[in-house]
Amino acid sequence: MHTDLVAALDIGGTKIAGALVDGDGRILLRAQRPTPAREDGESVMRAVGAVLAQLTASPLWERASAVGIGSAGPVDASAGTVSPVNVPGWRDFPLVERVRMAVGGRPVTLVGDGVAMTAAEHWQGAARGYDNALCLVVSTGVGGGLVLDGRLHRGPTGNAGHIGHISVDLDGDVCPCGSRGCVERIASGPNIARRALDRGWRPGPDGDVTAAAVAAAARAGDPVAVASYRRAAQALAAGIAATATLVEIEIAVVGGGVAGAGDVLFAPLRHALDEYATLSFVRRLKVSPALTGTDAGLVGAAAAALLGGRPGASAYVG
Amino acid sequence: MHTDLVAALDIGGTKIAGALVDGDGRILLRAQRPTPAREDGESVMRAVGAVLAQLTASPLWERASAVGIGSAGPVDASAGTVSPVNVPGWRDFPLVERVRMAVGGRPVTLVGDGVAMTAAEHWQGAARGYDNALCLVVSTGVGGGLVLDGRLHRGPTGNAGHIGHISVDLDGDVCPCGSRGCVERIASGPNIARRALDRGWRPGPDGDVTAAAVAAAARAGDPVAVASYRRAAQALAAGIAATATLVEIEIAVVGGGVAGAGDVLFAPLRHALDEYATLSFVRRLKVSPALTGTDAGLVGAAAAALLGGRPGASAYVG
Repeated sequence: MHTDLVAALDIGGTKIAGALVDGDGRILLRAQRPTPAREDGESVMRAVGAVLAQLTASPLWERASAVGIGSAGPVDASAGTVSPVNVPGWRDFPLVERVRMAVGGRPVTLVGDGVAMTAAEHWQGAARGYDNALCLVVSTGVGGGLVLDGRLHRGPTGNAGHIGHISVDLDGDVCPCGSRGCVERIASGPNIARRALDRGWRPGPDGDVTAAAVAAAARAGDPVAVASYRRAAQALAAGIAATATLVEIEIAVVGGGVAGAGDVLFAPLRHALDEYATLSFVRRLKVSPALTGTDAGLVGAAAAALLGGRPGASAYVG
Repeated sequence: MHTDLVAALDIGGTKIAGALVDGDGRILLRAQRPTPAREDGESVMRAVGAVLAQLTASPLWERASAVGIGSAGPVDASAGTVSPVNVPGWRDFPLVERVRMAVGGRPVTLVGDGVAMTAAEHWQGAARGYDNALCLVVSTGVGGGLVLDGRLHRGPTGNAGHIGHISVDLDGDVCPCGSRGCVERIASGPNIARRALDRGWRPGPDGDVTAAAVAAAARAGDPVAVASYRRAAQALAAGIAATATLVEIEIAVVGGGVAGAGDVLFAPLRHALDEYATLSFVRRLKVSPALTGTDAGLVGAAAAALLGGRPGASAYVG
């Protein structure tokens, strides 16, 4: 039997998902555990072990040649360690070595979750066929990743594409990262909701104060809700334009829960891009919603496994 | 006789320089003409032709295998055209084809001047030995270029690294490019001088109102002059930190006339980087002054000629 599958792990602050994925990006087997994010590092690792045990127990397992991990960041791919902000028990945790031990020495590739999502969109989604692309995840935070010259650009530590923490307002509000005016500080879901509440928007009878509720209010014409999305769009546009100006991208793909607002976000985003993406070589930039959905993390981790440790690899083939 | 040399052209708004350069980056022959920037496109091309004629008349010429051009931007390497802001007679001017005709069909490679300076610093200067670097030219404008994964990252149109026109202040002053709060709008030499004058700094008896005069005043302790450089440093730091966060760079090399201010610029720049470069993988970022000086444009154009049209090429060898 040949090794035509890879194993994928998607590690976040709320769940740890695993899968066996074929060379066409199809998920053949899934496993999942909640992340015991408030417990110590070994407890979190036990949850990873339980997910892996479900995969290795399958008759399909012997066809798996490698493991890809997409993890909440920061990660350090060069050291094989992870320090997810929302998992305090893991600081410089040697995840790559621990997973390698659990999978009989198969090669393990680690990338940040933004890079994984980007690999998924480049392999299967809206960035397919583009040699230069930025993919964003706009959700509780804002993450991202880059495809440059046809290759996933991971960076030496696997963190490249961290658009959420570039400053687009150098005198702006302090961000939890320590900088000021970061894209995430303006455009994340919680910040869209906070800004709307601060300016007088009030939730409906269901008490829903999420960015999705603000989006619903914006669709109904609430000017404060519209303005909060417009401001988020402006920060995203400044960040996307900065990226295009720095590395020349042809498309920006936007996913994550906040992208679910649809035109409430995308219409002012395209408008603001006209304002910030001004040089001749960035004016043709396209903006598209992401296509890979909730499996992006697993599909992207599988893509990373297929690329392996080769920084110049460009094809997601087994 | 073997072809161990390349020809280099450095095209700016004030002068057109040419050279024959060997495989170690040494300039063996030079030629130069003023740029007739206010005249029509054919007059400008005649000045280029005169520079090339001086090179082709040399007995060294038969050893030249290729031509590299670094030009004031914007350029379009994919179309082979240039549209330098300060040379209105050239708009989408087919410079590559015209130069190719003048040099007997030898291969011609075009890059923007920021990319050329970066190639020079990576080949011969402060970025040598780094696989991931940003080089900046802070002068009348602010330009730049990138080395990623050990390769000069030119981008599809040869404009990548345009750090002067990323917005670090999304509500800031309108930039001539049409955007707002661009790094160049805050950190270029003329903007450093303008801000100092606006806040009450006055030149000495020589009437010198350049950024260099503001730097001299800052060294003498003038608080308005110090503050103007500090603001420029802050904008540069936000832009450099954004670049590091997006693509993971190990070093930022800063050249151009404004970098001549020395510690008046570099001390607040390093301080501001601590504020904006906060994520774990960007904290080790180094900042160094450029080393290649006034020949950077020619040396970089020669490096581009050695790399040729191969986007993946990484070694400056003939």
